[in-house]
Amino acid sequence: MKTNPGNYFEDFRLGQEIVHAVPRSISAGDVALYIGLTGSRFALPSSDSFAQSIGLPRAPVDDLLVFHMVFGRTVADISLNAIANLGYAGCKFGVPVYPGDTVSARSTVIGLKENSNGETGVVYVHSIGRNQRHEVVLDYVRWVMVRKRDKSAPAPEAKVPNLPSEVAAADFMLPAGLDVTRYDAALAGQPHLWDDYAPGEKIDHVDGMTLEESDHMTATRLYQNNAKVHFNQHSEAKGRFGRRLIYGGHIISLARALSFNGLAGAFKILAINGGRHVNPSFAGDTIYAWSEIIERIELPGRRDVGALRLRTVAAKDHPCADFPGSLTAAGSQPPAELVLDLDYTVLLKRRA
Amino acid sequence: MKTNPGNYFEDFRLGQEIVHAVPRSISAGDVALYIGLTGSRFALPSSDSFAQSIGLPRAPVDDLLVFHMVFGRTVADISLNAIANLGYAGCKFGVPVYPGDTVSARSTVIGLKENSNGETGVVYVHSIGRNQRHEVVLDYVRWVMVRKRDKSAPAPEAKVPNLPSEVAAADFMLPAGLDVTRYDAALAGQPHLWDDYAPGEKIDHVDGMTLEESDHMTATRLYQNNAKVHFNQHSEAKGRFGRRLIYGGHIISLARALSFNGLAGAFKILAINGGRHVNPSFAGDTIYAWSEIIERIELPGRRDVGALRLRTVAAKDHPCADFPGSLTAAGSQPPAELVLDLDYTVLLKRRA
Amino acid sequence: MKTNPGNYFEDFRLGQEIVHAVPRSISAGDVALYIGLTGSRFALPSSDSFAQSIGLPRAPVDDLLVFHMVFGRTVADISLNAIANLGYAGCKFGVPVYPGDTVSARSTVIGLKENSNGETGVVYVHSIGRNQRHEVVLDYVRWVMVRKRDKSAPAPEAKVPNLPSEVAAADFMLPAGLDVTRYDAALAGQPHLWDDYAPGEKIDHVDGMTLEESDHMTATRLYQNNAKVHFNQHSEAKGRFGRRLIYGGHIISLARALSFNGLAGAFKILAINGGRHVNPSFAGDTIYAWSEIIERIELPGRRDVGALRLRTVAAKDHPCADFPGSLTAAGSQPPAELVLDLDYTVLLKRRA
Repeated sequence: MKTNPGNYFEDFRLGQEIVHAVPRSISAGDVALYIGLTGSRFALPSSDSFAQSIGLPRAPVDDLLVFHMVFGRTVADISLNAIANLGYAGCKFGVPVYPGDTVSARSTVIGLKENSNGETGVVYVHSIGRNQRHEVVLDYVRWVMVRKRDKSAPAPEAKVPNLPSEVAAADFMLPAGLDVTRYDAALAGQPHLWDDYAPGEKIDHVDGMTLEESDHMTATRLYQNNAKVHFNQHSEAKGRFGRRLIYGGHIISLARALSFNGLAGAFKILAINGGRHVNPSFAGDTIYAWSEIIERIELPGRRDVGALRLRTVAAKDHPCADFPGSLTAAGSQPPAELVLDLDYTVLLKRRA
Repeated sequence: MKTNPGNYFEDFRLGQEIVHAVPRSISAGDVALYIGLTGSRFALPSSDSFAQSIGLPRAPVDDLLVFHMVFGRTVADISLNAIANLGYAGCKFGVPVYPGDTVSARSTVIGLKENSNGETGVVYVHSIGRNQRHEVVLDYVRWVMVRKRDKSAPAPEAKVPNLPSEVAAADFMLPAGLDVTRYDAALAGQPHLWDDYAPGEKIDHVDGMTLEESDHMTATRLYQNNAKVHFNQHSEAKGRFGRRLIYGGHIISLARALSFNGLAGAFKILAINGGRHVNPSFAGDTIYAWSEIIERIELPGRRDVGALRLRTVAAKDHPCADFPGSLTAAGSQPPAELVLDLDYTVLLKRRA
Repeated sequence: MKTNPGNYFEDFRLGQEIVHAVPRSISAGDVALYIGLTGSRFALPSSDSFAQSIGLPRAPVDDLLVFHMVFGRTVADISLNAIANLGYAGCKFGVPVYPGDTVSARSTVIGLKENSNGETGVVYVHSIGRNQRHEVVLDYVRWVMVRKRDKSAPAPEAKVPNLPSEVAAADFMLPAGLDVTRYDAALAGQPHLWDDYAPGEKIDHVDGMTLEESDHMTATRLYQNNAKVHFNQHSEAKGRFGRRLIYGGHIISLARALSFNGLAGAFKILAINGGRHVNPSFAGDTIYAWSEIIERIELPGRRDVGALRLRTVAAKDHPCADFPGSLTAAGSQPPAELVLDLDYTVLLKRRA
């Protein structure tokens, strides 16, 4: 068999190391297409001059574009037979990626647990993305529910890894040379700095973006993420939803892009503490988003910049002026209009 | 309030200076996506070797891509609450933009006039786009009809600026080093040069391009133009048209791209004298275009190149063999099939 | 008449040389958009580091992107009035194209044969694409059925060129410096090398890709291929199919991209021996593909790499587990679900 059937639950072994195929050079072309597909307007990845004004050599690649490129490498090995992408934890962004860099990915299986139905199991992988100089650009854990090929295959010893609920401030990696002395809030798009956001504050990002088949497929193909459910209407018409399912990462990107309206000063993502794709999204849905400030974090040894831990929630066909999902108790069923519940940490300038 | 509600009519003051957010680095990726979304085929922005053959260091960024990028900067401050983009005047293209350059924009409010209904007013802004060396890349006036937040807010003293009906030849900026001695008409796509076009001559550009939601949204997102009406089907379904409205600039780009068939030698736009988006365009419409030669302009001190002032009209679902709108009297209601009426000036080689 | 009506059958003369318009600089932006539109994952055009590991200076432009760019140059002169793109022969890929290179194209008319109905004729052209250093990047023959402008125009003397059924191994051009000593099969995406494929072996590429109007139009515009049938729903609604026809080259690209699943090690295309667009494709169709190994070819003077001659067949809305079309006798009517039957030759590493 020359084609890749993808790994089934019983193909994974605890401690297994996987070298993912096709290192990916990321170019200014990928950067442009990412802006075209998401509408992201954050100043740092949009502007060489803004990047230089805060001490970087030029505009780095958008953090989420790096995430999708690394994630895309892992799909053929990890999630081709996945039923659901269950969660992320401990996702740390490393050294900046610049156009011209090449990212590659490796994963280690750190947890396995067969489900009681005997038909599926949960696989936990720790994935690391590196650039061509072997520097870490991304480091995260995700877990997916994967089909068994053979229901009678024996269950492995269950191992559920101990996962962090958040990335610690000591693990944030700030770009080398970062100096916000000349940071220009007008050019960044918002006067508000780190100090202006208070824990508990909620921000409706107001705008909405309607999903098109062409847009999500082009984004997902760009990342070379080949999960079948995103591309094949002929087979999905007979599937669970009758439609192509949109890559959850595209929704993360849209939520982040929408969050510019209210959080324009959050010029960089430091970490993704966790996240869930609460419900699926489809072409024709309009995505809205709102954020809550969870925590204001001081950074070790820095008085000039600080971190905000955010919860950003995305909803479909539901404007977020009423902050949908904000009162949902942990563990209860989320409202049908919610599609994303993301816990992440961003970097902002502090007042002098 | 952390989100940008946009400026309402009473937020603008005469003489107000606005620094627009997010300088935008323009890359080879933006250039490629612009060609992919418009189908433009003009030789100068398509080809380094053609650009070098006429004395430029390499292919400059398409003039209209520069226009959209500068315009996109201004939207969040000027036209987020606009009901209509009423017109353009005095639009001059400055030094060429090359991939790697970063454009930023500033605007000055040069006119204000409240409408008699007391609900809206017209705002005139003079916008200037500059590159990272502070050289002017674009300089234009546009005026928009903007909602008042509060109908009872007092009207400002009316000031309607004196606007030029055309950009004077003395204000055209030719690229430094331009030398058409080795201009190759076969490679440019058309044997006809400046001398071959006569005032009054009409050209049907023949071809048609059907609009798709994904295409116009991707173009508009690429320019980081965040006007809500282009992206949100959920809210527009309840709006004026029941549909997403296509950014008028995308229609300008399509009309220019279609004009290659008949005006391939018009390798550069020097100025936009004026223009109106006569009717809205929507996904599913097919855009056609025709042009009339308004004037043949000799350029001061140049015998090698000349300018043509053109009127290019775009129509939807209406082939232009009958030159729709050509007989429309000024001030009368334009035909429903017309979407664009553009008055601009282009550069061509002259016969030796 | 300033617009290009395209050439009709009687406009072509045997031996005629045509310089095609608009040399095209190919950038990293075109490369990114090509991946975004096709989902191609082959390691060589995706990765500078992979390219360097096998002796190239950096990732070359995907062979098929080069093909489409050269082909796109020729459309305005050769096939604007074509009814059908009948076939390709003797297509050889030359020196690698790198981002920053500019390709241009010339064609020679090498055959003409009027059809017996007196309304159309077949035109055979030999087209050559060159880079800015005048090195050949592509060399091929195609023949198209073209309308006559005037049915009463006299038929030229019929001349049908002698066309090769395959490109000879001696004519394959390997990239200078190619050295697969450090080729990493895990990074390429598949453990199988040249030696592992046997003539007669059939591979179902499993995956399917649904076509969208926006995707095929953006791809075709990117190549500046201006054939009207791909873009104008307003006119095509009254045409042969009632719909926009998808550029056959887009189907070739999708079939190649799908073939990664089973042929990931085929890192470069050496030649296209022949190919037919068996039936048209439209938006909404889902493309599947399968391949048969026709021949394993040793390359003169090389023990490290070898060529595989492949037949790749693409079908619409028909998974390829049953290898549709594999039993079709030459000359018989192909099944309605087939859209492409391509005969081409690829390069792989051999076992040491």
